[in-house]
Amino acid sequence: MIEHTSTVNVRYAETDQMMFAHHSNYIVWFEYARIELMRAVGINYCEMEKNGTLLPVLEVKASFMRPARFDDELKIKTQLPAMPRSKLKFEYQIFNNQDELLCQGYSLHAFMNSRNRAVKPPAAFTDTLKRYI
Amino acid sequence: MIEHTSTVNVRYAETDQMMFAHHSNYIVWFEYARIELMRAVGINYCEMEKNGTLLPVLEVKASFMRPARFDDELKIKTQLPAMPRSKLKFEYQIFNNQDELLCQGYSLHAFMNSRNRAVKPPAAFTDTLKRYI
Amino acid sequence: MIEHTSTVNVRYAETDQMMFAHHSNYIVWFEYARIELMRAVGINYCEMEKNGTLLPVLEVKASFMRPARFDDELKIKTQLPAMPRSKLKFEYQIFNNQDELLCQGYSLHAFMNSRNRAVKPPAAFTDTLKRYI
Amino acid sequence: MIEHTSTVNVRYAETDQMMFAHHSNYIVWFEYARIELMRAVGINYCEMEKNGTLLPVLEVKASFMRPARFDDELKIKTQLPAMPRSKLKFEYQIFNNQDELLCQGYSLHAFMNSRNRAVKPPAAFTDTLKRYI
Repeated sequence: MIEHTSTVNVRYAETDQMMFAHHSNYIVWFEYARIELMRAVGINYCEMEKNGTLLPVLEVKASFMRPARFDDELKIKTQLPAMPRSKLKFEYQIFNNQDELLCQGYSLHAFMNSRNRAVKPPAAFTDTLKRYI
Repeated sequence: MIEHTSTVNVRYAETDQMMFAHHSNYIVWFEYARIELMRAVGINYCEMEKNGTLLPVLEVKASFMRPARFDDELKIKTQLPAMPRSKLKFEYQIFNNQDELLCQGYSLHAFMNSRNRAVKPPAAFTDTLKRYI
Repeated sequence: MIEHTSTVNVRYAETDQMMFAHHSNYIVWFEYARIELMRAVGINYCEMEKNGTLLPVLEVKASFMRPARFDDELKIKTQLPAMPRSKLKFEYQIFNNQDELLCQGYSLHAFMNSRNRAVKPPAAFTDTLKRYI
Repeated sequence: MIEHTSTVNVRYAETDQMMFAHHSNYIVWFEYARIELMRAVGINYCEMEKNGTLLPVLEVKASFMRPARFDDELKIKTQLPAMPRSKLKFEYQIFNNQDELLCQGYSLHAFMNSRNRAVKPPAAFTDTLKRYI
């Protein structure tokens, strides 16, 4: 299992008239957090795309326990629980400054080449992960 | 069961460098679609909030089968499958112009008053739904 | 001069905790409106990009007179005041249902090919516009 | 004059199919940057809103010289050039990692109370600024 914690601040533009961070932003923060987890183990997703492998989202789920508010500093604990085969799963937990769990969820990804075909995970990708899992 | 179909066009700002509509936008389209379903049966969500009942999201899930692209006209089929008790569930299917299923998902909501306390569904809300379910 | 009016509804996700539509959304609505103006005169911007001409934004300005709120139906009056030479300018006025002016602004665009080089406006583009200006 | 530099990373969700960061995001980054400038001199905008003074945007302008791309680390140099009277102006310059200027612009703000009335700048606000300007 690989685990990584990243941080985001709730932007004003991310709030809604319920005075909470709008729930769609958590999906964007999940994305940010999985890219940071990959970076932390040496996988630059930006380069990975340039080299022709993309990670489109097949499925995303989020459960909301408590609201986040403007200017809250959030911790996103991201886990990559298992070596990917044809699919890649990330799990997320988002906490506020008082360590209260605000949201948990996951995203499931395919490996896709630049012509939108499903491919196997690149060797460089799995080799890097093997050092950690 | 209540069913309603609404339409959205994929905006340029909603695309990403994968040349697809970014997956977080589906969550926003779900929201638009459930508000339109409510409007179609005579429930103005904007008024409902002014009258003190909010519908925060407890859970949202989306599965992505095919990408949507810039300028695609999407049909969102939204269902309210059952009378809400303490929670309210909406189900969504999003189709493109060729009637291909792009995405399906659901959202689960609480009824909340303006002091962020869980409340029962307002009588006006359930009375309106009863005529359809 | 070419003039076109399009319509958007303020989405819940577009509100912020000031209870207004967040000002960044007007920039997205401007974009929607200019694409609809082009469509109205027979220019499909989606096809135009596929054929290799893009219209990146060089400059955008918006002045805000009154707020838009959730669920407001907005009318966007868009004008293309003059035949483009190397640059293309659109002007916008956004009104609410009571015909109050909420926002006015403009966007200025370059013509760019797919290798990010400035190009002249395509002949098909200017020929179409000539019929209206 | 007060000057402050903050940093943002271009998120994947902020890209569009032009392979650039969509221009509407700069408006959101401006907002982030002015809140960070205020924080740097001891003004917590979140508290300021709770205390009843809001800073709605009257005008925003951005000029785009070069594109930002996914994962770019951007520096936002923000200036508050003069003591606010009835209006408050911030100026922005956004640079990439190679110190190339990508965007410059400004935003103009009113001081508003929670009943949406224009008010004078709060004394605590101007007193804090006076120490710097």
